[in-house]
Amino acid sequence: MSPPHVLILGGGFAGIYAAKALRKAPVQVTVLDRRNHHLFQPMLYQVATAGLNPSDIASPIRSILRGSDNTEVLLAEAEAIDVAQREVRLGDGTAISYDYLIVGTGARHSYFGRDEWEPLAPGLKSLEDALEIRRRVLLAFERAEREKDPVRRHAFLTFVIVGGGPTGVEMAGAVAEIRRYALRRDFRHIDPAEATVMLLEGGPRLLPSYPESLSTEAKRELRRLGVEVRTETLVTDIRPGWVCAAGWTIPTQTVVWAAGNTASPLLKSLGTPLDRMGRAIVEPDCTIPGHPEVFVLGDAAHFEPPGGGTLPGISPVAIQMGEYAARTIEGDLAGRPRRAFSYWDKGQLAVIGRGRAVADIWKLHFGGFLAWLVWIFVHVFFLIGFRNRVLVLLQWAWSYVTYRRGARLITEEVRPPVASS
Amino acid sequence: MSPPHVLILGGGFAGIYAAKALRKAPVQVTVLDRRNHHLFQPMLYQVATAGLNPSDIASPIRSILRGSDNTEVLLAEAEAIDVAQREVRLGDGTAISYDYLIVGTGARHSYFGRDEWEPLAPGLKSLEDALEIRRRVLLAFERAEREKDPVRRHAFLTFVIVGGGPTGVEMAGAVAEIRRYALRRDFRHIDPAEATVMLLEGGPRLLPSYPESLSTEAKRELRRLGVEVRTETLVTDIRPGWVCAAGWTIPTQTVVWAAGNTASPLLKSLGTPLDRMGRAIVEPDCTIPGHPEVFVLGDAAHFEPPGGGTLPGISPVAIQMGEYAARTIEGDLAGRPRRAFSYWDKGQLAVIGRGRAVADIWKLHFGGFLAWLVWIFVHVFFLIGFRNRVLVLLQWAWSYVTYRRGARLITEEVRPPVASS
Repeated sequence: MSPPHVLILGGGFAGIYAAKALRKAPVQVTVLDRRNHHLFQPMLYQVATAGLNPSDIASPIRSILRGSDNTEVLLAEAEAIDVAQREVRLGDGTAISYDYLIVGTGARHSYFGRDEWEPLAPGLKSLEDALEIRRRVLLAFERAEREKDPVRRHAFLTFVIVGGGPTGVEMAGAVAEIRRYALRRDFRHIDPAEATVMLLEGGPRLLPSYPESLSTEAKRELRRLGVEVRTETLVTDIRPGWVCAAGWTIPTQTVVWAAGNTASPLLKSLGTPLDRMGRAIVEPDCTIPGHPEVFVLGDAAHFEPPGGGTLPGISPVAIQMGEYAARTIEGDLAGRPRRAFSYWDKGQLAVIGRGRAVADIWKLHFGGFLAWLVWIFVHVFFLIGFRNRVLVLLQWAWSYVTYRRGARLITEEVRPPVASS
Repeated sequence: MSPPHVLILGGGFAGIYAAKALRKAPVQVTVLDRRNHHLFQPMLYQVATAGLNPSDIASPIRSILRGSDNTEVLLAEAEAIDVAQREVRLGDGTAISYDYLIVGTGARHSYFGRDEWEPLAPGLKSLEDALEIRRRVLLAFERAEREKDPVRRHAFLTFVIVGGGPTGVEMAGAVAEIRRYALRRDFRHIDPAEATVMLLEGGPRLLPSYPESLSTEAKRELRRLGVEVRTETLVTDIRPGWVCAAGWTIPTQTVVWAAGNTASPLLKSLGTPLDRMGRAIVEPDCTIPGHPEVFVLGDAAHFEPPGGGTLPGISPVAIQMGEYAARTIEGDLAGRPRRAFSYWDKGQLAVIGRGRAVADIWKLHFGGFLAWLVWIFVHVFFLIGFRNRVLVLLQWAWSYVTYRRGARLITEEVRPPVASS
């Protein structure tokens, strides 16, 4: 009899950690992803702001799992899950059957039903997203340099980031820094330091999942970098050339969306209840009701811990869930009863700029340079693959000393800017 | 009176070196390019074969020239040159006038009138080209891994490089190496080492511009890496799924074009005689007949040195021409008579693989590890920007020790493969 087949959808944190933990288990593992690389998403904003290269924060899934002899990696797109037949249908019409299914398909940005905003305000989830945002930010400075009309020039030099969660805070800080330091001497007709960076948050404070003192700290640090932070400012419309928020109109050519997430549409085919964000509502063992062989993990899961609320969509949750699912499958095969998943909260970190961050670790709340150092070490430590760690540290050290950013490339031909209205 | 305006078209080697040499001259300089970066083209094949990152071999033109206070950089596309009016028309309808014009717009690949081959057999001139080739090469292995039919699998695992000049030789060597070393343990159903790499050259020998002993050496080294080298093998047709050459049909899904160049079509608007490759035939001072204020340099120039023949399209020629044009303009302004350009030939180098290269330096012809070391130092020395040099050396050292390649990312969504006929 052949060993049970564990099919893992998605090579993100949940999927990779599950596959790694199953390395020695008596199972056959397949990891399926439509991209060939695992992405260290928490640092994606560094690619979007020209601080790091794509390959610094991404590794081929095959090479991460090359030591797992029971594991196969497939580059393919899952179209639907058939829990009754226990199979996953692929984009090319074929199907793969499973004994256990682990769904770690992550999330995309959500525009709250205003999908027409997407081309005007791209979000930040994939390498392609990051390269597109990098292209737009760098091109905006280029166009401002050539623009004679001061009103239009000002719009090119206005960067609006929508959403005050960790991604929005990190993006705003990073754009404020390249404007002030990296690009300082590059232009002749504009002063990049005069560019406006706005961070718009609909709720009452930044970093709503953090303790309130850190929200205040983050706001203060961002203001020190010259970011205009506006809370209670809901975006009501985005059009080519401007953003409408809280009753006024901001002329801008560059908008980044960091305001909302929605889980992968693939989950709909599970036929299980989903929450408002499209996540599958899972049992205490991270499986869907009636299907103990189907795990849904990470950003795709709506998990209610005993204390109430839901677990946030951050990488430590996904990693712990991935390892938990692997342990549970091994336990099943060994005939051990299942235990509920419990999340060990090690804290949260957000970086604001060069030498500035806020941290909430084991009930300690702190900001400034120390938090930033902790952030660097935690993030570099988790970067998968030794080569990346060393190169990323070197690149940061270099850019810290010189204030320069190395990956300032606009790839793709010059396109006309989004027309101003 | 305002200082004379020197307009430089193209931020390649000729343009950048001309601009740098004019840094202290009593002129106003504008460098215009449709991309924001200078590209170290001799190492582009390293990006195409996942050895280096785009930003390792490219630097923003602005940052290279940020110390030149008399120099402005414009991201724009030149549409036509009007030598009578002394102005260049841009894509957006505006025009820029000049007192001196330096044309360093380089070359694209030429398909000898078979432009329908381009989508099937991309060439290697820009970062986008390199990323596209990287995507195709890596995807071919992914598709082979999933392909059950042995005949189709073999086509996915056949890589054909057309053209035996330095680019073709370097590409063939690099593809042979990733197949053998970097991808060795990544797959479960195929053995990447079994992939076929073919190098097709229409003429009688590889590296036709090198001494004959080095052509033989290069062929031997490539064969040692398992590359099938076929000389006197002219490609007569390329179709989806196969290449026709010297009477036989090679089933393949991945073809790289390195067989011919043509200068930028912009040169046609000069109204001066062009050669068969579309290059402007220039006077001994690198200007076009009747227009001593218009220099055409590098790959865009057909320059006949006193000894006969034409100068090859390699970076040392472009660099020396750029510096020469700058000196000549300074001389004009100081009232000195012009002297003819003379090329100082320091030799040629081509790398074949890990620890293998051939060199023709000051009449010395040698191959093997020594040539490879010389190649590394010459290339890293010329990489513009200190940061890049250090990172590239580290990356090479790392990949030399481990046989791994770091930038193995397939960015962009999975697309269907080119249909097999």
